[in-house]
Amino acid sequence: MKVISDPKEFQTLALAWRKGRRSVGFVPTMGALHDGHLQLVRRCRKENAIASVSIFVNPLQFGPKEDLSKYPRALEEDLRLLKKEKTDYVFTPTEGSFYEDRFATKIKVEGPLVKGLCGAFRPGHFDGVATVVVKLLGVVQPDRMYLGQKDYQQAAVLKRVTVDLNLPVELRVCETVREPDGLAMSSRNQRLSPEGRRAALALYRGLKVGKGIFDLGETDSDKILRKVKDMVGEEKKVKLQYLEAVHPESLQEVETAKPGTVLALAAFVDEVRLIDNLIL
Amino acid sequence: MKVISDPKEFQTLALAWRKGRRSVGFVPTMGALHDGHLQLVRRCRKENAIASVSIFVNPLQFGPKEDLSKYPRALEEDLRLLKKEKTDYVFTPTEGSFYEDRFATKIKVEGPLVKGLCGAFRPGHFDGVATVVVKLLGVVQPDRMYLGQKDYQQAAVLKRVTVDLNLPVELRVCETVREPDGLAMSSRNQRLSPEGRRAALALYRGLKVGKGIFDLGETDSDKILRKVKDMVGEEKKVKLQYLEAVHPESLQEVETAKPGTVLALAAFVDEVRLIDNLIL
Repeated sequence: MKVISDPKEFQTLALAWRKGRRSVGFVPTMGALHDGHLQLVRRCRKENAIASVSIFVNPLQFGPKEDLSKYPRALEEDLRLLKKEKTDYVFTPTEGSFYEDRFATKIKVEGPLVKGLCGAFRPGHFDGVATVVVKLLGVVQPDRMYLGQKDYQQAAVLKRVTVDLNLPVELRVCETVREPDGLAMSSRNQRLSPEGRRAALALYRGLKVGKGIFDLGETDSDKILRKVKDMVGEEKKVKLQYLEAVHPESLQEVETAKPGTVLALAAFVDEVRLIDNLIL
Repeated sequence: MKVISDPKEFQTLALAWRKGRRSVGFVPTMGALHDGHLQLVRRCRKENAIASVSIFVNPLQFGPKEDLSKYPRALEEDLRLLKKEKTDYVFTPTEGSFYEDRFATKIKVEGPLVKGLCGAFRPGHFDGVATVVVKLLGVVQPDRMYLGQKDYQQAAVLKRVTVDLNLPVELRVCETVREPDGLAMSSRNQRLSPEGRRAALALYRGLKVGKGIFDLGETDSDKILRKVKDMVGEEKKVKLQYLEAVHPESLQEVETAKPGTVLALAAFVDEVRLIDNLIL
């Protein structure tokens, strides 16, 4: 496994790969890797001749009051895990080399995709995500990029961006990986207290109750969401930020739930912001 | 010569080129080709195994009150000229296929590079240019892109964008091509009346006078610009929009002219907007 920090050096390698006939898979991450990331890496490993991963905590996607400084970092352990998964190349740019002093270009995403869900509460977040991912794709030039379904809106936005900018990459979105008790894996989970960790289970429990009554025939979104909210509300430590039932592609709210409709939520637990979703 | 309108079809070809070892050169144009464009094509032809050109009048880079509908179109003649230059591939996307209904992604360029010169008078123009060029690069995936020096700020902005987004393309900027009487070649020149055409010569005459007094030792930008303005002002049909002496890379105004300083101007003649520049 080769670890490269210099964007130019990585890009030169990537250009050579492209001249060959070997397929390149890519998993962008912010490090602090958990099994959700590693599932992406495993699939990337399986489906491509070259498996590459980036680790970069991207300041551009954090708001001024968000948890950039508190975001977990664990480079050494991350590299150990990636090596175990037989990753070929790890790209670890530094902030200085990735955002030069005169950096002046941003990707801006507009319209319904970024209006609701996290977009409503994290202004500029998806612009930051889109910008860093376009940069990473420029460096790594993969055939395929692997993303997790837990960040549902992120995957939808990046799908839009790659189509809109004609970027020659195929997106593959992989199912959310959960702890045995159902909590969606997230690097932020390690910031939870033991009680917070327990309380956070209400999120998935709520989503499952929502799916349960849909499976029993309820299609009124309001009624489904009310049930989810009641269930989550039983845990006093959990403060819902949003809870929506949205169309799987447009991400617009739907009044009537159908198979494919996405129940998505964000909540604060111990001042840690968690997200989760379930597809009906 | 192959002419392709479908972005996917062109991109599939381009991906195959990249797997080979042949270098790809690319000249983005809005058509209505003149000898300035053709010089770019010739250099592209000479320096690459595959020479590709795009023709697309990009609505995104025109303001609501600008001349999108009046911009000259001459596809048939353009293709004839490109064939004569032994162009291999011409990409002619349609507006519908290049900007889908749900198109939602824009490149935004901020900072000093877009504050002055044309940027001050054409809000959003360079965002539109940057967006379409990133898209074109996504489709064509060239090793080298050829741009004209006449659009000095455009070349500087695109240089910034390709560096900022880590796009694996090298920019080559070619000297402005002029008519025998000195007028910088532009697709818009054909919209000038015979008197306008004559009056427009004052622009290059003015720039040359500026360079002349610099060559004689004058380094005070104000004095140099005053001379240019006086010379251009002799033609009543020519209305200067801006005239600046700027640093060749930062494009910030300079008080003291040095070798490399750029004298740049825009002016309306017969309601046609023309630009020109000269490097001291």
